Amino acid sequence: MDLKIALLGGDGIGPEVLAQSVKCLQAVEETFNHHFTYTEGLIGAVAMDKYGSPLPKQTIDLCKASDAILFGTIGTLKYDDNPSARVRPEQGLLQLRRELQLFTNIRPVKIFPTLINKSPLKKHVIFGTDFVIYRELTGGIYFGEKKLSEDGTRASDLCEYSEKEISRITHLAFKAAKNRRKKLTLVDKANVLETSRLWRKVVTRISESYPEVQLDFLFVDNAAMKMMLDPNDFDVILTDNMFGDILSDQGSAICGSKGLLPSASIGNEHAMFEPFHGSYPQAAGKNIANPVASILSTAMMLSHFGLHEESLAVVIAVDKSMKKHVVTKDLNASSKYGTTQVGDFIAGNI
Amino acid sequence: MDLKIALLGGDGIGPEVLAQSVKCLQAVEETFNHHFTYTEGLIGAVAMDKYGSPLPKQTIDLCKASDAILFGTIGTLKYDDNPSARVRPEQGLLQLRRELQLFTNIRPVKIFPTLINKSPLKKHVIFGTDFVIYRELTGGIYFGEKKLSEDGTRASDLCEYSEKEISRITHLAFKAAKNRRKKLTLVDKANVLETSRLWRKVVTRISESYPEVQLDFLFVDNAAMKMMLDPNDFDVILTDNMFGDILSDQGSAICGSKGLLPSASIGNEHAMFEPFHGSYPQAAGKNIANPVASILSTAMMLSHFGLHEESLAVVIAVDKSMKKHVVTKDLNASSKYGTTQVGDFIAGNI
Ligand SMILES: CC(C)[C@H](C(=O)O)[C@@H](O)C(=O)O
Ligand SMILES: CC(C)[C@H](C(=O)O)[C@@H](O)C(=O)O
Repeated sequence: MDLKIALLGGDGIGPEVLAQSVKCLQAVEETFNHHFTYTEGLIGAVAMDKYGSPLPKQTIDLCKASDAILFGTIGTLKYDDNPSARVRPEQGLLQLRRELQLFTNIRPVKIFPTLINKSPLKKHVIFGTDFVIYRELTGGIYFGEKKLSEDGTRASDLCEYSEKEISRITHLAFKAAKNRRKKLTLVDKANVLETSRLWRKVVTRISESYPEVQLDFLFVDNAAMKMMLDPNDFDVILTDNMFGDILSDQGSAICGSKGLLPSASIGNEHAMFEPFHGSYPQAAGKNIANPVASILSTAMMLSHFGLHEESLAVVIAVDKSMKKHVVTKDLNASSKYGTTQVGDFIAGNI
Repeated sequence: MDLKIALLGGDGIGPEVLAQSVKCLQAVEETFNHHFTYTEGLIGAVAMDKYGSPLPKQTIDLCKASDAILFGTIGTLKYDDNPSARVRPEQGLLQLRRELQLFTNIRPVKIFPTLINKSPLKKHVIFGTDFVIYRELTGGIYFGEKKLSEDGTRASDLCEYSEKEISRITHLAFKAAKNRRKKLTLVDKANVLETSRLWRKVVTRISESYPEVQLDFLFVDNAAMKMMLDPNDFDVILTDNMFGDILSDQGSAICGSKGLLPSASIGNEHAMFEPFHGSYPQAAGKNIANPVASILSTAMMLSHFGLHEESLAVVIAVDKSMKKHVVTKDLNASSKYGTTQVGDFIAGNI
């Protein structure tokens, strides 16, 4: 298969973990006889420094012309400490999601058996946890109108949803549930929010087309509780942009290391793959960042294009790195392996 | 001291846990020579059934004429399953918060040493956890304009904050931090939301009046993560209505039983005290609900009126019930004690 891949390393540890992903994809090309091309683009703080914009036009064009985008991470300390700056690196990511209409963010939360001891949760609580969050990514309070009064004393953010925005992600979530344990939990705050009530109405109606999937509802506060007490009861979680942001980070913490989980952002025409974790500017350039989340994102990409055997080969190589303890220091404080060594090992085992 | 106390039992297990609180307060009256009067009022589903409104005028009047309100819980299965009903029990609670301007919700999250094994988190993670959440309670997306388009295909909720709304709770939170470990964490999503940026601006300015308190900022997704990985690092968390709802429920799950944590909702003129937990309609009338959260809410009430010795007496009696294993089944599956027996024991030890 031929694939055009855009590489957006972004800020912090993004570029270095992404480089390990490319290594792995090159190994896939060789082993399975594919032909991928890679083109780099700038986004985030690094793009602001060079072009004055966190998402330059060249980058948008590059992404639109690509089959898939591999994304690193975004954000630097300089901007994190100054959230009132009118232009911020994160805007690049938000704009890109919107521009490419990547309306579904898929975040699998699965515990690696070899790493179960890393979880902050007790073994009997976390054991068997394997769920996936379908987070709406281009609507809701993230993109609704924002206002600041002239005198700066009042601010507002509008959370809006349309039936259409809800229904397109809902179909994807039901399809995923059908291929999994056949349970879908809609997380909302329908006892308070009008948008949540619309979500319930639309999702309930669509559920009739998926009779084999069991649908239930959970208020977001109860969901945050349940994720601590009973995470292995979840199968597919469907939720809006803001709730999905919070719950998926809570979900990633369950797994004990922030460096392990991949994610996919899917639209009708484009698809982007990125680690779950942040940009950890403190770790940038030190060869200590864990490349696994980024590498597993390539496995999601390969699956997305129907290359299931290839995807599995990546996952198996990652598993092997863990079994052989070829891991970064976040997983094993006495490890002598850095980002590139772990990347080399995994690529070498594909 | 003379105190007029309004008792709003509400739905589900509310009335039965509240009855145990009254027992404890009567014990306090006797032991410390105070005079409390108790008047019952209806709220929630029970009020809807009787008066067609979840917050009848009599109840508002009663609350306004009282020194303090003890609240039970709200919500029934009938309404939970039908969140699109235009009138819902929760509206009674939301209206009451607004009507009495109870703008600060205080939710302490503290692990009982005797119950540390009940936490879903590993001992070394949870050990020493003792923080308090200051949640804004009468603003934000809970109370902003809600819209549903005529054809029912679009919905919106507005999240609004003013400097004044932010500043009044911020002062209370800083004062609390001053009397604790002197750390305040503002939780927001300032990299995306305009309201969050206003929070940062106002809180940063106010922090100058509390130089002994260390202020830091955390995005809400990172906060949800940190609450799993490092909960004992928090001291005072300050946040908006929606984020506070989610984080405080996550915080309560940390403690292993939902039945343990109290809360206070404070305004300039009124104060209400209630357990953190929901109405568990499934448990209602079975004498199995844990009354501790409700009883500890009376301890918060006593402190609020400067009755610190009395408050401590309640807390010590609760501790004793745990040490002597006089607890409900949620804490010890083989326990033979029910709601009333635990209430009697605690009241008898004041
Ligand atoms: C960087 C930020 C805007 C982003 C979000 O909140 O969507 C991040 O937290 C994420 O979850 O991908
Ligand atoms: C019942 C509901 C409206 C309420 C809220 O979300 O505020 C509850 O969850 C709480 O936290 O007190």
